[in-house]
Amino acid sequence: MTEQFKQINLVQRPDGGPIGPHMFDVVEQSIPTLADGELLIKQSHMSLDPAMLGWMMPSEDSYIPPVALNSRMRSSGVGVVVESNNPNFVKGDQVMGMMGWTEYHVSNGTDVNKIDAQITPEMALCVFGLPGLTAVQGLYSIGEPKSGETIVVTGAAGSVGSIVGQLAKADGLNVIGVVGSDEKADWIVNELGFDGAINYKSDDLAGQLDALAPNGVDVFFENTGGPIQHAIFERMNAHGRIAVCGMIADYTAAVPSAGPNWMRLITKRIKVQGFTMPDHLHNAPALLEKLTPYVMKGQVKYRAHSLHGIESAMTGLNLFFTGENKGKLLVEL
Amino acid sequence: MTEQFKQINLVQRPDGGPIGPHMFDVVEQSIPTLADGELLIKQSHMSLDPAMLGWMMPSEDSYIPPVALNSRMRSSGVGVVVESNNPNFVKGDQVMGMMGWTEYHVSNGTDVNKIDAQITPEMALCVFGLPGLTAVQGLYSIGEPKSGETIVVTGAAGSVGSIVGQLAKADGLNVIGVVGSDEKADWIVNELGFDGAINYKSDDLAGQLDALAPNGVDVFFENTGGPIQHAIFERMNAHGRIAVCGMIADYTAAVPSAGPNWMRLITKRIKVQGFTMPDHLHNAPALLEKLTPYVMKGQVKYRAHSLHGIESAMTGLNLFFTGENKGKLLVEL
Repeated sequence: MTEQFKQINLVQRPDGGPIGPHMFDVVEQSIPTLADGELLIKQSHMSLDPAMLGWMMPSEDSYIPPVALNSRMRSSGVGVVVESNNPNFVKGDQVMGMMGWTEYHVSNGTDVNKIDAQITPEMALCVFGLPGLTAVQGLYSIGEPKSGETIVVTGAAGSVGSIVGQLAKADGLNVIGVVGSDEKADWIVNELGFDGAINYKSDDLAGQLDALAPNGVDVFFENTGGPIQHAIFERMNAHGRIAVCGMIADYTAAVPSAGPNWMRLITKRIKVQGFTMPDHLHNAPALLEKLTPYVMKGQVKYRAHSLHGIESAMTGLNLFFTGENKGKLLVEL
Repeated sequence: MTEQFKQINLVQRPDGGPIGPHMFDVVEQSIPTLADGELLIKQSHMSLDPAMLGWMMPSEDSYIPPVALNSRMRSSGVGVVVESNNPNFVKGDQVMGMMGWTEYHVSNGTDVNKIDAQITPEMALCVFGLPGLTAVQGLYSIGEPKSGETIVVTGAAGSVGSIVGQLAKADGLNVIGVVGSDEKADWIVNELGFDGAINYKSDDLAGQLDALAPNGVDVFFENTGGPIQHAIFERMNAHGRIAVCGMIADYTAAVPSAGPNWMRLITKRIKVQGFTMPDHLHNAPALLEKLTPYVMKGQVKYRAHSLHGIESAMTGLNLFFTGENKGKLLVEL
């Protein structure tokens, strides 16, 4: 085979400004001849996730190794096997895995999993991929939701937050979502069934929280950081649980914003727990077992916001900062 | 009996200034005739604890009901039964309980526990009372200490912190204490066996932390709040645990100080958990069972700082703000 394909390497780390093509190198590659045990995958959909911003950072603080400079940008995706020298895969199998920013991926079979052909690539990446695993891990292991309690989810129209809220609603909680546009507020209430929505850009945060959570907040699922964090924290009930999943407002901040004073942690005996999925991927089968019945009952809706062409990924990441995307970000190849 | 005794009622709540006699009313009372089932206790030692400052506050935020105005100030203490109409107690029994600021206490037998005559009142209040229970609850349920790890304890010469550090040392941890004087630093290192001490008033906090915790901090037992909190938080290792027990620096603050930004909670997957003992008193037998072997092996030393006379309690509480006390605060009656 001599067909050419594109992959994109990271060549410069975020500097606080927008993510863009100057940080990447689009490389033309030739499809290699497969060795024994290898398979060739044509990727059809790449997932863009907020966690990728963390993977691009240099830092000693990264929970998984940062993407090395001059190597392929890391991402999850779905594709189809087009050639296989591996006994576990045949041409036509649909697979999911961390293939990175590339049109074709050569695998030894250990970095991808087969997924049922009945599951669309969109559903695989929007529900059964990192978003769903992350939602289940954080909501149940840390949030410990109980019917009748009140949960507030920030980034509630995002890939993780939208699933968290729907699971909590199915479990009988009063579910409040914080979003960044009226369109998203409308979507989470009227399509997803949230009990209430707050547009942090225009609403009176304190007043809306008081109106929607008159009995205070029992579970806080944090995806964004920012000023709303303090307003929610101040309304946490005794024995409240806070799952800290994302802090998009602080990912590239030069000076971190102030967190809430810890006095309330004592008076209300609150637990705050940060988590990331790489710690829990070994637990994925159990997480999927928890998630699947909700999906089967139609309790987990999603929407994909698709970009087109591999190069669109480079500027697409900025949508996490602006919040202009409507739904889980994907790149169709 | 017509003997008179004194009790002290709370008549004004803290206003941000020092605690003092203007907030209390010293009342002369007559010892009443005991009803059936009652016993009369002559209190010999009252305990002064930082938590009492919280009990004096008005707030909806209190984890146990605030002390009502014009009622006896709440405290724990040790005394001797001087008269009993209760079949479970005889004259001469030593008892411990929440007797409050009073020289004599009439009990129905449910609010006090008998303690062995071999245990001095000082040891009962300094080790087996709230300080020891609090240390065990926070260190083991939240801190989950493991041999070889590093723990930092603030308020390390205090009643709770000094026990936490000694338990952790006995368990094989690298134990660093933060204190407010060179005398206390000397005491926790040379008498209690801490591996290192930092005087937050005079030392270079960051430099000393780096020197004493070169591999970072795994467990943070927080008793004080204040600027040192941020320096410790910034050095927390992956999967670190933070037990938030006290925030003396913020108890009466009009404007709460800023807490640490939550980004590190994610990158390091840190747990922060506030707790108070009233939630866990039902678990006291198990906590004492955990604590006792350490005490029996001589691994838990203590020192009492005794004030004299019931009136001394009124100004004695200020020592928690100034840190001038050397050891667990008691009032000898």
